[in-house]
Amino acid sequence: MESLMIYMPIAMAVLGLIYMGVKRSWVMKQNAGDGKMKEISDYIYEGALAFLSAEYKLLSIFVIVVSVLLAVVSFVVPTTHWLIVVSFIFGAIFSAFAGNIGMKIATKTNVRTTQAARTSLPNALKISFGGGTVMGLGVAGLAVLGLTTFFIVFFQFFMGGVWTSTMDMTIVLETLAGFSLGAESIALFARVGGGIYTKAADVGADLVGKVEAGIPEDDPRNPATIADNVGDNVGDVAGMGADLFGSYVATVLAAMVLGNYVIKDMGGSITDAFGGIGPILLPMAIAGAGIVISIIGTMLVKIKNNEAKEAQVMGALNVGNWTSIILVAVSCYALVTWMLPETMKMEFFGEGLQEISSLRVFLATLVGLVVGAVISSVTEYYTGLGKKPILKIVQQSSTGAGTNIIAGLATGMISTFPSVLLFAGAIWASYAFAGFYGVALAASAMMATTAMQLAIDAFGPISDNAGGIAEMSEQEPIVRERTDILDSVGNTTAATGKGFAIASAALTSLALFAAYVTFTGIDGINIFKAPVLSMLFVGGMVPVVFSALAMNAVGKAAMEMVQEVRRQFKAIPGIMEGTGKPEYDKCVAISTQASLKEMMLPGLLTIGFPLLIAFVPMIFGMNSLAIAEMLGGYMAGVTVSGVLWAIFQNNAGGAWDNAKKSFEAGVEINGQMTYKGSDAHKAAVTGDTVGDPFKDTSGPSMNILIKLTCLIGLVIAPILGGHTEDEGMALNTQTKEIMVNLDIDNSDEANATVTYTTTVDGISETEEVTFEGTQEEVEEQLKAFENTTIDKKGTKTEVTIEKVDIRK
Amino acid sequence: MESLMIYMPIAMAVLGLIYMGVKRSWVMKQNAGDGKMKEISDYIYEGALAFLSAEYKLLSIFVIVVSVLLAVVSFVVPTTHWLIVVSFIFGAIFSAFAGNIGMKIATKTNVRTTQAARTSLPNALKISFGGGTVMGLGVAGLAVLGLTTFFIVFFQFFMGGVWTSTMDMTIVLETLAGFSLGAESIALFARVGGGIYTKAADVGADLVGKVEAGIPEDDPRNPATIADNVGDNVGDVAGMGADLFGSYVATVLAAMVLGNYVIKDMGGSITDAFGGIGPILLPMAIAGAGIVISIIGTMLVKIKNNEAKEAQVMGALNVGNWTSIILVAVSCYALVTWMLPETMKMEFFGEGLQEISSLRVFLATLVGLVVGAVISSVTEYYTGLGKKPILKIVQQSSTGAGTNIIAGLATGMISTFPSVLLFAGAIWASYAFAGFYGVALAASAMMATTAMQLAIDAFGPISDNAGGIAEMSEQEPIVRERTDILDSVGNTTAATGKGFAIASAALTSLALFAAYVTFTGIDGINIFKAPVLSMLFVGGMVPVVFSALAMNAVGKAAMEMVQEVRRQFKAIPGIMEGTGKPEYDKCVAISTQASLKEMMLPGLLTIGFPLLIAFVPMIFGMNSLAIAEMLGGYMAGVTVSGVLWAIFQNNAGGAWDNAKKSFEAGVEINGQMTYKGSDAHKAAVTGDTVGDPFKDTSGPSMNILIKLTCLIGLVIAPILGGHTEDEGMALNTQTKEIMVNLDIDNSDEANATVTYTTTVDGISETEEVTFEGTQEEVEEQLKAFENTTIDKKGTKTEVTIEKVDIRK
Repeated sequence: MESLMIYMPIAMAVLGLIYMGVKRSWVMKQNAGDGKMKEISDYIYEGALAFLSAEYKLLSIFVIVVSVLLAVVSFVVPTTHWLIVVSFIFGAIFSAFAGNIGMKIATKTNVRTTQAARTSLPNALKISFGGGTVMGLGVAGLAVLGLTTFFIVFFQFFMGGVWTSTMDMTIVLETLAGFSLGAESIALFARVGGGIYTKAADVGADLVGKVEAGIPEDDPRNPATIADNVGDNVGDVAGMGADLFGSYVATVLAAMVLGNYVIKDMGGSITDAFGGIGPILLPMAIAGAGIVISIIGTMLVKIKNNEAKEAQVMGALNVGNWTSIILVAVSCYALVTWMLPETMKMEFFGEGLQEISSLRVFLATLVGLVVGAVISSVTEYYTGLGKKPILKIVQQSSTGAGTNIIAGLATGMISTFPSVLLFAGAIWASYAFAGFYGVALAASAMMATTAMQLAIDAFGPISDNAGGIAEMSEQEPIVRERTDILDSVGNTTAATGKGFAIASAALTSLALFAAYVTFTGIDGINIFKAPVLSMLFVGGMVPVVFSALAMNAVGKAAMEMVQEVRRQFKAIPGIMEGTGKPEYDKCVAISTQASLKEMMLPGLLTIGFPLLIAFVPMIFGMNSLAIAEMLGGYMAGVTVSGVLWAIFQNNAGGAWDNAKKSFEAGVEINGQMTYKGSDAHKAAVTGDTVGDPFKDTSGPSMNILIKLTCLIGLVIAPILGGHTEDEGMALNTQTKEIMVNLDIDNSDEANATVTYTTTVDGISETEEVTFEGTQEEVEEQLKAFENTTIDKKGTKTEVTIEKVDIRK
Repeated sequence: MESLMIYMPIAMAVLGLIYMGVKRSWVMKQNAGDGKMKEISDYIYEGALAFLSAEYKLLSIFVIVVSVLLAVVSFVVPTTHWLIVVSFIFGAIFSAFAGNIGMKIATKTNVRTTQAARTSLPNALKISFGGGTVMGLGVAGLAVLGLTTFFIVFFQFFMGGVWTSTMDMTIVLETLAGFSLGAESIALFARVGGGIYTKAADVGADLVGKVEAGIPEDDPRNPATIADNVGDNVGDVAGMGADLFGSYVATVLAAMVLGNYVIKDMGGSITDAFGGIGPILLPMAIAGAGIVISIIGTMLVKIKNNEAKEAQVMGALNVGNWTSIILVAVSCYALVTWMLPETMKMEFFGEGLQEISSLRVFLATLVGLVVGAVISSVTEYYTGLGKKPILKIVQQSSTGAGTNIIAGLATGMISTFPSVLLFAGAIWASYAFAGFYGVALAASAMMATTAMQLAIDAFGPISDNAGGIAEMSEQEPIVRERTDILDSVGNTTAATGKGFAIASAALTSLALFAAYVTFTGIDGINIFKAPVLSMLFVGGMVPVVFSALAMNAVGKAAMEMVQEVRRQFKAIPGIMEGTGKPEYDKCVAISTQASLKEMMLPGLLTIGFPLLIAFVPMIFGMNSLAIAEMLGGYMAGVTVSGVLWAIFQNNAGGAWDNAKKSFEAGVEINGQMTYKGSDAHKAAVTGDTVGDPFKDTSGPSMNILIKLTCLIGLVIAPILGGHTEDEGMALNTQTKEIMVNLDIDNSDEANATVTYTTTVDGISETEEVTFEGTQEEVEEQLKAFENTTIDKKGTKTEVTIEKVDIRK
């Protein structure tokens, strides 16, 4: 049975996708309302499709360009296999397909939720959360299916489906990295482009509609209102989905890479019931189990009481969420103890090989689960309605927009304190438990509940849309009240979801970073070398500039939208009286075009910088290991700074948003109840305007920036791994010089251990050989060992002696 | 003559102080006006003294506490000498004294400038810049005098005034680090406390005076107006002075430390005309030359035309500034070629020893001068009136405060791009020219013009004050017009001065960072070790949280001020009619108390974190080299993130300020001229409110944060340098194991080079010994070498063999 374990994740993924199909057809069978409701919903659906098809067009060009580049590299650099192009393309297709499923179901579920809200709240929750579940399982199922399938294919192709060596496995995983790169590239378009789209439409609709024309939010007379509602789906559904799809794949991949290095540290091969690849299969198995667990979790989300309020809805979501987390912990324990050797050897940098029990690996996964849960609470504290930071911002709104802004900025900044301490603690703890394999498995465990997290996340924008449709189709107030309850809970889950996304991005990047170091074969990244230090600075700067570009992009796109809306208000007769029909599609088109155009520059920054750092010094003939170290410094800079700016921007934005929302129910300022329309409220609205691009565009984009940076590094890694220098080497070159410890007194018994490294096709492996006897005998044996040929598969074998350890 | 070179910097410093005295008495002799002018000026003077005396009281406590701590450490840890306490106290006293001189002259010069502005602009410039010159020379003169004197004293005390070994010199410099720590501690109080003071007073005065009571800026009826004017001196004069005093001392110190390591790399001693300490004396000599050059520079700042505008005044300042920079370049060439050996050996991490010509050291100093000049232009571009970024913010003000804020934030963020690339390039280039010694000398050369920079900087707030006095004493409009011209130029120099300050802080920190690594004896800082990586994260977070705390501190202190002003408006009869007299001193007291109280928390964060990182793991028995590496990661995190946040906050704040100022002369928005009082202007005022704490409190505080962090690291370094483990070691422990390369064929000629490291009192030194002959002979010699005793001064000698290199 154990040998079939490699197929387990596929089976789970297929199970997840089947359940998704069932759930999807159930949602689609629900009453989609009639008349105006249906009409509006169709507009949103078509707008979403318009964005998708424009995005796909651009994406195709992008994928072709990158594929050609990758193909060229794979032909020029012998250590890179052309199959990486195939896996790249499929990574992109799978991710795009997952986004497609999510967008479609979200834009179909919204109107059904509105319709259900006409009868009862429990039904409305059931449908909106059902839509979210489809989205979540689609993403998780496709991610696991794609990654596992390609792993099996490459495992067959390169190794014939049986363990040969860690070097061969490295080639398998390097090729598999293409899949992850493809997925993350789509995330760049979806998250950054989507983030610009949603805020351009939102700001554009508000500035002209609410402010200039004085019509309410979601008013059907506003030409930008459909674009605004499409934006919720583009940004929050497709963007978040692609983000987590990318994290999921990258995390599992990084854990597999580090699993391979565990096998290397244990002598190059292990014997277990899983064909000797237990540590590599484990992360996939955890991901597979996570899908089934997520299905169970989503089933638990329901309420019965039609009079329920936010607390009960939130409670239902929490039951599902916590159950999943606990079940993942249990399954991690089972899988870790079953699939890993009882004790492993892992190389700790600077501390040598250490014995690690499988229990310690389990403890590392627990660290990940704790981080996932705690980061949500931290985010909730800094951005939640009624919490101290929000109340403080509300108070500061009474003295004007300036003090409101300062308070919001300060809240976002302060929130980095517990978040970073949490991350730093998690890195330290999971590393202490099980090295970087532990860090990567912590991330894997956290990401195992991705399907559940996405279901909770996607249900928010669906409910938001449902409310919009209720407003636009002029339903009775009770309908809007019910969707508002769901929307309000959705706002909280959106904030905590962002916390989860950044935590996943941070851990994923660290795992990728570790995988990068092992791929390149450098012995660490020393920031005491000035070039590395300067790249750390440059890397730290990139997230800041990226954020600014994203914010400016929103401003530019919003301005285009404003002009179009103004034009329509002037040009279309009877539009304000509701007799003239606004041209929704033109606004959708503007958002679509502008967002995709404006994401180019930040995208170029993300992709261009690591390539420049890798290839410009290469042209000038710099040593490729030195370049690898510089690039590592850059990656660390981007990650540290990106995580900080993500937390800062997400939480400041979330805090401003809820400070503004606080005025809806009324707040007490200096002993007086203050409501919407007051000066303090206006100040809070200004804060929210600033916060919008923070929390929906630049903040979440940081995730993609840091992951994509580390992934590009990982894909470049084999080129930098000192291989370019091997080009001219003869076949089977072996240079052996044995160092012998001469001691003064010639006592009797001695033994020598030679540690040597063989390098085949750029992949290094370290082995040991021990000699015993008198000192003279040992010396003889050492001399003899110099003359032996070390037999290694592959054409180029380079042998270097690392260490001779002689003892008496 | 050369042997007297050690006294040259002292002579130059004394010359500078004498010139300062002459200039000071000239300024004091000028007409100080009469009646109301004099009265107001006296209030400001007394307010400034009140702040100083309150600050000194708090400082004394702080200095005593830290001294006791340092004393305890120096008695417990044998590698730390108690004289560090003395140098710490004197560092604090010198810095405080320099601040005292600056504050006093600034608050005496303001009214004399107003009086001079009644007759002519050239005179007003002459006096206000004269005040600035006194400030600049006071700071630079005392810094060089103090540092050089203590160096000579310690050089005599520990080494008898002649070269003995790099280890002894290390002890001299470690003890001297106390002086730098003392100076930087004062800077913490002056810059952070001062920053909170100035903005609390400003915001408090504005909120009640301008907004609630509707009276203009600097109106004498406003009880907070004196505090506001005092604040300009406390923040911009004393704060900036202490900041640059600290940078100046720290830079020279770091360069001396690295100079000592150049000598070490050259074999432990060199023969030159300067008693073998040329590389150590050089940074002091450059600083000394800089003082004389600055005097020349300040003499060139004058205008003749009474009808001159901003451009001419700016031009006059530029003539002085550029002349100083060019003269520093010339003197660097002369000093470098004269004082350094023609070729030196420097260890480049990972690349081994390299030959470096003195010309390359000169090129490194040029890099520093270029950075100083270019960073000012970059800052000027992003914050200057009429420049593209400002015009864009002005345009965005037309759609409200929200878009104005976004545009300002984006400008600050984008401005990190050229700035960080400049710094990264500078690190790389100066390191490539001459290693970390080059980096430190680049900083030293840049800082050589400190006196000139400070003169230009201090003249701004003096002119600002002069304008305030003109307003309050109701002078004719022409007086205010003239002071406004000076003030406007002062605003530009304030922004570029901040650029200079952050560049100096960045380079200083890097130099300190390099000195730290050499002091601890660790072989680099490897961020691929998880504990180091987590500390990089934590370090990156600290500047963000520090900034938030500083911003919140301004908010709290401003609120106290608002309440006091409101109380006075109610309680004092006739205050609004000008018949009742406001109680200025109460407002001054509130600003003083609040600012000193509110700086505690950020101060604690700055000092506490590095101590926690160093000592908590030590209690848990962690290896001290591992701790040193973690602390290094933390320092790097703080520096990278701190530099980014400093640039971001300073430039965003400066940009908002000038966007608001643009409305005074009128701006064209969408084809319409828009002025003060318009909605767009109100939006710009909101932006300026947000920018105020950014540019005057949290932004400039980053300099202190990063420098103090690195200095604390440097002072802790000897404790972490692996010494704690030596405690129980026997005297003269020598362990030698020689590794010999056995080759298969026994050919004739061989030679072996043994590289070994001796460690005495925790200070390591690497030496080489070479053996030649047949292989057998070489082996014999190696065996023999094992039995020799390596004779080293000091009680504990530890010998480890690093490398045996055998060739045929």
